[in-house]
Amino acid sequence: MKRFIATMLLTLCLATTGLCQQELHGGATGAPLIGKDRRATFTIDAPKADEVMLRLDRHQDIKMTRGTNGTWTFTTEPLQPDIYRYCFLVDGVKTLDANNVYTMRDVATVMSLFVVDDAKAPCPYAVHDVPHGTVAQVWYDSPTLKTSRRLTIYTPAGYETSRQRYPVLYLLHGSGGDETAWLEQGRTAQVMDYLIATGQALPMIVVMPNGNVDEQAAPGSTAAGMITPTFDHKQWMEGSFESSFQDIVKWIEANYRVKAAKRHRAIAGLSMGGFHSLYISANAPLDFGYVGLFSAAITPRKDVKSAIYENLEQKIVTQFDQRPRLYWIGIGKDDFLYEDNKKFRKMLDHNHLASRYTYFESDGGHEWRNWRTYLVEFSRLLFK
Amino acid sequence: MKRFIATMLLTLCLATTGLCQQELHGGATGAPLIGKDRRATFTIDAPKADEVMLRLDRHQDIKMTRGTNGTWTFTTEPLQPDIYRYCFLVDGVKTLDANNVYTMRDVATVMSLFVVDDAKAPCPYAVHDVPHGTVAQVWYDSPTLKTSRRLTIYTPAGYETSRQRYPVLYLLHGSGGDETAWLEQGRTAQVMDYLIATGQALPMIVVMPNGNVDEQAAPGSTAAGMITPTFDHKQWMEGSFESSFQDIVKWIEANYRVKAAKRHRAIAGLSMGGFHSLYISANAPLDFGYVGLFSAAITPRKDVKSAIYENLEQKIVTQFDQRPRLYWIGIGKDDFLYEDNKKFRKMLDHNHLASRYTYFESDGGHEWRNWRTYLVEFSRLLFK
Repeated sequence: MKRFIATMLLTLCLATTGLCQQELHGGATGAPLIGKDRRATFTIDAPKADEVMLRLDRHQDIKMTRGTNGTWTFTTEPLQPDIYRYCFLVDGVKTLDANNVYTMRDVATVMSLFVVDDAKAPCPYAVHDVPHGTVAQVWYDSPTLKTSRRLTIYTPAGYETSRQRYPVLYLLHGSGGDETAWLEQGRTAQVMDYLIATGQALPMIVVMPNGNVDEQAAPGSTAAGMITPTFDHKQWMEGSFESSFQDIVKWIEANYRVKAAKRHRAIAGLSMGGFHSLYISANAPLDFGYVGLFSAAITPRKDVKSAIYENLEQKIVTQFDQRPRLYWIGIGKDDFLYEDNKKFRKMLDHNHLASRYTYFESDGGHEWRNWRTYLVEFSRLLFK
Repeated sequence: MKRFIATMLLTLCLATTGLCQQELHGGATGAPLIGKDRRATFTIDAPKADEVMLRLDRHQDIKMTRGTNGTWTFTTEPLQPDIYRYCFLVDGVKTLDANNVYTMRDVATVMSLFVVDDAKAPCPYAVHDVPHGTVAQVWYDSPTLKTSRRLTIYTPAGYETSRQRYPVLYLLHGSGGDETAWLEQGRTAQVMDYLIATGQALPMIVVMPNGNVDEQAAPGSTAAGMITPTFDHKQWMEGSFESSFQDIVKWIEANYRVKAAKRHRAIAGLSMGGFHSLYISANAPLDFGYVGLFSAAITPRKDVKSAIYENLEQKIVTQFDQRPRLYWIGIGKDDFLYEDNKKFRKMLDHNHLASRYTYFESDGGHEWRNWRTYLVEFSRLLFK
């Protein structure tokens, strides 16, 4: 075998000039190196550079230290179990870690990715040795939007063989996102696998649609080609997603083994997806037993006229008359939508609904770290 | 809306130091810029660098030209419709294109990715405006290997709603690969979508297993964490994959709507996957109506004793007695396995089987460019 590998690698080296070094040096440790004390050590070879910075998540850029051989390093303080993004700035040029194949995209920014886990406090975003669900990217027909569009669908471990029916969580992304956002940045499959396996959540299907009605699927997945993802969409919070949402529910309930009833149907979303969840559920008070607003946008665009956004207060009262099993609102103290959410809660309280919704306030702002936490908290409460 | 976007972006900028520039500057053009004449123009800002090279696929590294503002550029000759990988070397430091969110991993090397398409000669690896199949990553139980393992499964457009049964192609990766290789590097979903929509191939299910029996799934998708992918595996071409392969076929035929008969079952693979296809089909002459060997390894390891690898010639004669509908061998003139394949064909010819197999010889060597071509050629011939 060794001879076969050697021959093959030699040939590959000849065929792919200069790639060989990278293809060979990876051990099983991955990068960065995470110590037993949960300190992360970052390393990059840049002998000719004058300055190398580490950009770690949303922290300030950190100066790395040059070794005599031109290798730059930095070691963090112990990190909390979580997932982290980073890149290097080598004399100002953004560089991913060439020793780390794992990346995460946020709109048009790609960063290197790593996970810090801890046996004593397992990180729900890490992959654990538990039964794994299926992740599918599926195209459905939307008669309302007159096109086919893509969904990401998580079905829990055992779906294929169990023959049973499952409840469904519809989980919506924010602006700048698409049907891959909750999967990649939200780590939905890892979260659901772990919560279900440890009995913290019930087995459920999670449907992650694309909330941008002017695109069929995530950038790169349509005939538009490998375009640059952007926040900006021609159609945006103008009612089309809400009014076409039943196409998704109908398609799922026709083609998946689901429990098609209000008490087995949940809807939640972050930012624009929270806005979608708010108005979709308020306009269809008989449809969703569980609603989750994660850092939700509340106020419609001033330049949009749509019956969907009118008489919200009255619709909400009607919705609560139908006794949703859970109405969950989560937001960070530093979120720029905090005040809007406060006003929304005041409106609920004014209508004597204070005891009828769950409020979860976290540190931090409008960020994935919070939305992952909210997903964990919210999905634990579903379908019980 | 503009005010909402502005507020949101401002907040994101404050929250995610320095990311804002990258999140805003992407238009819809993507990077590199592909001209109407199919020339690609690469650009990177590196004002402090002394030398910037473009590494384009397996070509030599190309010196880029510095502009007065510190932006380095290079424009290629017109490129053939195809997909291409590249990176920059900024004073020797490997850097992906920060303006391009699309990447492709080959073992432990990640490169930026782009596609060159042409209306007159559509590239089958591009996404076209055709009905799209579903791509699922599914875990199956292997009683033989006593573990659960992951498969990538492509089901053609309409699978969910049609209620009909489909033929199945089992498509196997090479060493260094995993169940994501044919999907990502082979562009299987794009190829099948395009060939099926244009009537060049029949609707089929494509099952892409993980051929490394010592791992349950691709690196990063198991409890082993974000490890560095490697060529090296503890168990490798020692018979376990071949002897456990029926677990996959049985699981697929129990849980998917397939036509479970030899004339509706194909197996093909590249390099180690060609080796697997060769021995799996030779040991089960009643199972596969179609066999594809793409740059296949032929010769077993000298240190491995297994009945699976014994008496190949006799098994092949028996297999051909059962009249496979297609036995397809493809290899590049410069492939390091060319001589082994030549010997194998000699053995077939010696057994009067020269007219009973299809031989496809291409330029080039042991590389994905060839394997994608072979997939296109082979899948056009299936189940007809």
